[in-house]
Amino acid sequence: MAAQTVESTESTTSGSVTTDSVTPVDLGPAAALSCRECGHRVPLGPVFACEECFGPLEIAYDFAVHSAADTEELRKRIEAGPANIWRYAPLLPVPANVAEKPNINPGWTKLVQADNLARELGVDAGKLFVKDDSGNPTHSFKDRVVAQALEAARAFGFTTLSCSSTGNLAGAVGAAAARAGLRSCVFIPHDLEQGKVVMAAVYGGELIGIEGNYDDVNRFCSELIGDPAGEGWGFVNVNLRPYYAEGSKTLAYEICEQLGWQLPDQLVVPIASGSQLTKIDKGLQELIKLGLVADKPYKIFGAQAEGCSPVSVAYKAGQDVVRPQKPNTIAKSLAIGNPADGPYVLDIARRTGGAVEDVNDEQVVDAIRLLARTEGIFAETAGGVTVGVTKKLIENGLLDPTLTTVVLNTGDGLKTLDAVADTGLTATIRPSLESFHAAGLA
Amino acid sequence: MAAQTVESTESTTSGSVTTDSVTPVDLGPAAALSCRECGHRVPLGPVFACEECFGPLEIAYDFAVHSAADTEELRKRIEAGPANIWRYAPLLPVPANVAEKPNINPGWTKLVQADNLARELGVDAGKLFVKDDSGNPTHSFKDRVVAQALEAARAFGFTTLSCSSTGNLAGAVGAAAARAGLRSCVFIPHDLEQGKVVMAAVYGGELIGIEGNYDDVNRFCSELIGDPAGEGWGFVNVNLRPYYAEGSKTLAYEICEQLGWQLPDQLVVPIASGSQLTKIDKGLQELIKLGLVADKPYKIFGAQAEGCSPVSVAYKAGQDVVRPQKPNTIAKSLAIGNPADGPYVLDIARRTGGAVEDVNDEQVVDAIRLLARTEGIFAETAGGVTVGVTKKLIENGLLDPTLTTVVLNTGDGLKTLDAVADTGLTATIRPSLESFHAAGLA
Repeated sequence: MAAQTVESTESTTSGSVTTDSVTPVDLGPAAALSCRECGHRVPLGPVFACEECFGPLEIAYDFAVHSAADTEELRKRIEAGPANIWRYAPLLPVPANVAEKPNINPGWTKLVQADNLARELGVDAGKLFVKDDSGNPTHSFKDRVVAQALEAARAFGFTTLSCSSTGNLAGAVGAAAARAGLRSCVFIPHDLEQGKVVMAAVYGGELIGIEGNYDDVNRFCSELIGDPAGEGWGFVNVNLRPYYAEGSKTLAYEICEQLGWQLPDQLVVPIASGSQLTKIDKGLQELIKLGLVADKPYKIFGAQAEGCSPVSVAYKAGQDVVRPQKPNTIAKSLAIGNPADGPYVLDIARRTGGAVEDVNDEQVVDAIRLLARTEGIFAETAGGVTVGVTKKLIENGLLDPTLTTVVLNTGDGLKTLDAVADTGLTATIRPSLESFHAAGLA
Repeated sequence: MAAQTVESTESTTSGSVTTDSVTPVDLGPAAALSCRECGHRVPLGPVFACEECFGPLEIAYDFAVHSAADTEELRKRIEAGPANIWRYAPLLPVPANVAEKPNINPGWTKLVQADNLARELGVDAGKLFVKDDSGNPTHSFKDRVVAQALEAARAFGFTTLSCSSTGNLAGAVGAAAARAGLRSCVFIPHDLEQGKVVMAAVYGGELIGIEGNYDDVNRFCSELIGDPAGEGWGFVNVNLRPYYAEGSKTLAYEICEQLGWQLPDQLVVPIASGSQLTKIDKGLQELIKLGLVADKPYKIFGAQAEGCSPVSVAYKAGQDVVRPQKPNTIAKSLAIGNPADGPYVLDIARRTGGAVEDVNDEQVVDAIRLLARTEGIFAETAGGVTVGVTKKLIENGLLDPTLTTVVLNTGDGLKTLDAVADTGLTATIRPSLESFHAAGLA
């Protein structure tokens, strides 16, 4: 794991940032940034768009695994590692000693064998699993991606961790920065619900309300990166995005390890920007190439809410291009109308034999309740989307109920209580046995 | 681990329940119920009060560890166990195969080395730890105790899991019952906040509002146990209480194992009924007796909110008797005005050289914010109580800042958002660099 070198790169309109000095950075096996479109490679740095073709940059690795013995050593090292994402440090853009640094240590969340849910959905016993990421420190999968961005921020010498957010990401950035001793400055639409504001603000970082909608917030953040005021700022989902996005690979790693180092046959993954789904596929491919799992076919299914279903619409129309939508759904954590990774999601769903499907808000709420009453897991709306889509995919014959299937729940119902706000008391009685019996409750 | 036998016991006004048949039950190393006051032993059954003296019954074990080799084997078995409380199944009143049964598998939550908080409190670096139980499935330590009660309910053939609750417990019972495929029926005051009602109801069990306060709910539940309508009902915190309470021992086990099989020097534990603190002490004593940790002195400190501080008041007055209070504090999960285990807490605090202290609501809120901004942990009010009391104990010289100290956070800030509801935006700006600079945010 030799230290890498950040060389000076030119600032471009595509979002590259100038780094003036040559700084050695150690991000473990991360060897360079590589353009997903044209393959152009640049040294590791806080850049996210290719200077040649404006395509998205992602991490290229040098894993140094060349033999069956190397693979076996890696597997043992992982299994002996901590009960969090850092057990996979050799496969992530982080220094080898990452687990010793102060961070909130997300991951190694439960893979729940969901036999009750399987029964309701007509899936064979022992074949359905829920990967429950509500168990992360701030109760969403965002802790995984922020943890990677934090290491990149440290490596590049950033002193402020920032993002645009409408909820989960704000809390994840606030918590991670607090523990790491970095300043945080999070931008949100100024009229967010009070509960979300509290959750984002409690970690003590700066929380700036922007007079405008989420798109306005995003646009402003991109401007700030190019401004001298943004110097030293790592925007986890903008200039640190190549590192950030890799965190989703850990979902793939954990699922396979928890299945006994086996690929699942089918995965149902929510789509917001589409980055999580594409990185899960990347993670599975890495495990195959490294020999950590036996190669076999797997299908990846994408799940959207009908009120924000640009990828699902494109999939069903047989198109390669995703037409932006104006979101209108209760699944707000998935409400990205113009998903950056949409085309890659379409490609993966088609290549693996999966599909992309959507469910309406009523189905989302029904699925939240279904998961809660069958498995005791209270999911946020995004989990309602994946469970609801799983049900629909089985009904329309696209998902095989006899095969091993993993459904992702990426967040916590406590953060989207409004979705099930009409859930209430079965009955109200006086504190007497007479009243209890009269209500027919015995 | 021979199967135990439940023999018929007489129904008494002290809460015993008649079991008509002799049923073999397997609750692992649990050998009998033993009165904490007079030592009278009765067979394992759904009873909670001594038929001789009305004292509380607790579990007596036969651990079958008689040599250093036995201890070493037990340690290895624990370390190879699952990443949840069932790694300690050989020390709990549960069958050996408990991990294979459907339950929500709480525990093995993070022990966070809190160096930032230590710096603020004047504790030596590397000496302060937060045991963060917000990482449990329903985000409070209640999952630990309910998991034990569930196994007892199964062993005694109960088909309904029940409790009286004002919050955390309702969710824990609802989730555990859903996953286990049992009916749940939870009783709460009818006028609880809507958010808490939603959290308790979402798991699909019956949720009954009682026209009255929490005391009325409790009294009603005790009546129901004696009524034919309550037959087949396991009230986790009433007739299953001896089993339920043992779940808190797992906090002691985990803390010691996570410290490398060592006792901490000092623990700061919240007091509601006082059961958690007494069972943590029991757990530590068991580890010493079993040879899993080296014996050495440790101090246990109890933490209360000033608005419900009957044990703290008694401690400071040098009394052995706890005088009930009418609770008035934002720390509602600790608001038990007449704590059943209060006298035992006083005894443990005095015997170990600890203390019992309280903080006011403002200090609770300050401590919630302090923990969030230093360690990225968003605690519920009970966590604000323990962190606030830790600060106070250091200031008044009762807690030694040079020794290894573990502070418990038993719940999640998302469930008590009201406590920090005035936390908000640092600034509101227009989406422009000009506005950003004008606000002095750079």
